[in-house]
Amino acid sequence: MPSKVAEGQQRGWIVPIGGAEDKEANPKVLKRFLDVCGGSDADIVVIPTASRLVETGTQYDRLFRQLGARDVEILDFDTRRDCEEENRLKRIERATGVFFTGGNQLRLSTTIGGTPVAKLIRVRNAQGMTVGGTSAGAGILSEHMIAFGQEGSSPTASSVRLAPGLGLTNRFIIDQHFRQRDRLGRLVAAMAYNPFAVGIGLDEDTAAFIAPDNTLEVEGSGAVTVVDAGGLQFSSMAQVAENEPVCLLGLTVHILTAGATFNLHTRKASAGTLSPRKS
Amino acid sequence: MPSKVAEGQQRGWIVPIGGAEDKEANPKVLKRFLDVCGGSDADIVVIPTASRLVETGTQYDRLFRQLGARDVEILDFDTRRDCEEENRLKRIERATGVFFTGGNQLRLSTTIGGTPVAKLIRVRNAQGMTVGGTSAGAGILSEHMIAFGQEGSSPTASSVRLAPGLGLTNRFIIDQHFRQRDRLGRLVAAMAYNPFAVGIGLDEDTAAFIAPDNTLEVEGSGAVTVVDAGGLQFSSMAQVAENEPVCLLGLTVHILTAGATFNLHTRKASAGTLSPRKS
Repeated sequence: MPSKVAEGQQRGWIVPIGGAEDKEANPKVLKRFLDVCGGSDADIVVIPTASRLVETGTQYDRLFRQLGARDVEILDFDTRRDCEEENRLKRIERATGVFFTGGNQLRLSTTIGGTPVAKLIRVRNAQGMTVGGTSAGAGILSEHMIAFGQEGSSPTASSVRLAPGLGLTNRFIIDQHFRQRDRLGRLVAAMAYNPFAVGIGLDEDTAAFIAPDNTLEVEGSGAVTVVDAGGLQFSSMAQVAENEPVCLLGLTVHILTAGATFNLHTRKASAGTLSPRKS
Repeated sequence: MPSKVAEGQQRGWIVPIGGAEDKEANPKVLKRFLDVCGGSDADIVVIPTASRLVETGTQYDRLFRQLGARDVEILDFDTRRDCEEENRLKRIERATGVFFTGGNQLRLSTTIGGTPVAKLIRVRNAQGMTVGGTSAGAGILSEHMIAFGQEGSSPTASSVRLAPGLGLTNRFIIDQHFRQRDRLGRLVAAMAYNPFAVGIGLDEDTAAFIAPDNTLEVEGSGAVTVVDAGGLQFSSMAQVAENEPVCLLGLTVHILTAGATFNLHTRKASAGTLSPRKS
């Protein structure tokens, strides 16, 4: 569960990114992430645990410095013991943002899940620190994460497996590389398990910037598909066999592009800055 | 435009099938098509124009006979001149059903579009004759058909090209091989052009049986995805460049499996025979 936000404080930004964000020509997603970490005051801890490639962390270190961060540090949590280490926890205490790289989501959740570092990141987010991640690093942010799933547009009962994530919020479930890997079916199946949450499908090079007030705004070159099962009229989830398709009636779907918003409280979508100007 | 249904008559069934329907173990889609053509009284004309394979027509001829049709005939319309031939038109006059095979949708529309056979099929459907088709043969049935399109979950302005179809109805736009080829984006883009119609995405081995009263019921092993843009709150379709993603707010989506229904008039979905029994 998310840490409680203390009176007089406000929660920090939560920034899931769909993977493959532009790092060269037009890095507007990473630039805006830096902005919500404090801009030129940003002090970002990069956690490359999901990745097996040694260069993953250093790449983001270089990028955030180029974009103008005051300080960046790579903290590698390779074992659960690393996740209790006092110095690393202290480093996070003074960061203004934490960034999880892509890689293997289950490596991330099995290494840091339930450890002091996971708890600290929840507490710090509740105190105002920004937390974001790309690809696997985006999937981990919520209470429920999609651990496995089949590709394909139509949901089946077996098309998705949920696992506990970092738990910064329980209001949404994230899926990444959404358009590129055809994942509507598994996101919809995840909603069928828990219509309370909102499904968020992130295209590559596209992010949902979730403000302290739980209004999400899109940034990047693709779309964010919001699947809202709050008005669900019927689900056959409980009565179908594993590989049978699931019948779901009454889903609301919004396809948001850069500038459009969705409020996770009221479940209202808005064209935001895309609205035609009034004459 | 659809032919007018005369007083005292009712329109025939319209049966789009998503392609790759089971022809061996459990051919329930084709069996039900036969049923709505009159069962043991069925007299079916198979039109294999979309296909370049000579065996396509004979395969359905054999199948419908095995399933119990009274008569089956393959009518090959290879040229537009064929589509004016008196004897072939007369053959359709006495059929209880017409079935379009799969193949190339544009071959079908460019050959029969605007010819006497196209007109006759519309008239006969308005008089009660069943008309169905699989894959390309399904796409052609409506007034607007998807001629080309990109795969991928997120719609862009260029992700779909519409072309005139046979025009049995203008209430829906069909897309086939839906789950298998990741076509939500192009179906949603088609809806963005014309929110009046309902988008129907058919999985393989799955059909929408559209009754004379415009209630659609699903048959087959997959799902039918209904995209209803009737309540659309915002579309950026008119303001985006060709390859930019389109922002669409307020789509309603239903995923229907065998037994579930959707009424194209009222736009209400129902669990139909999937409803849990009342105790």
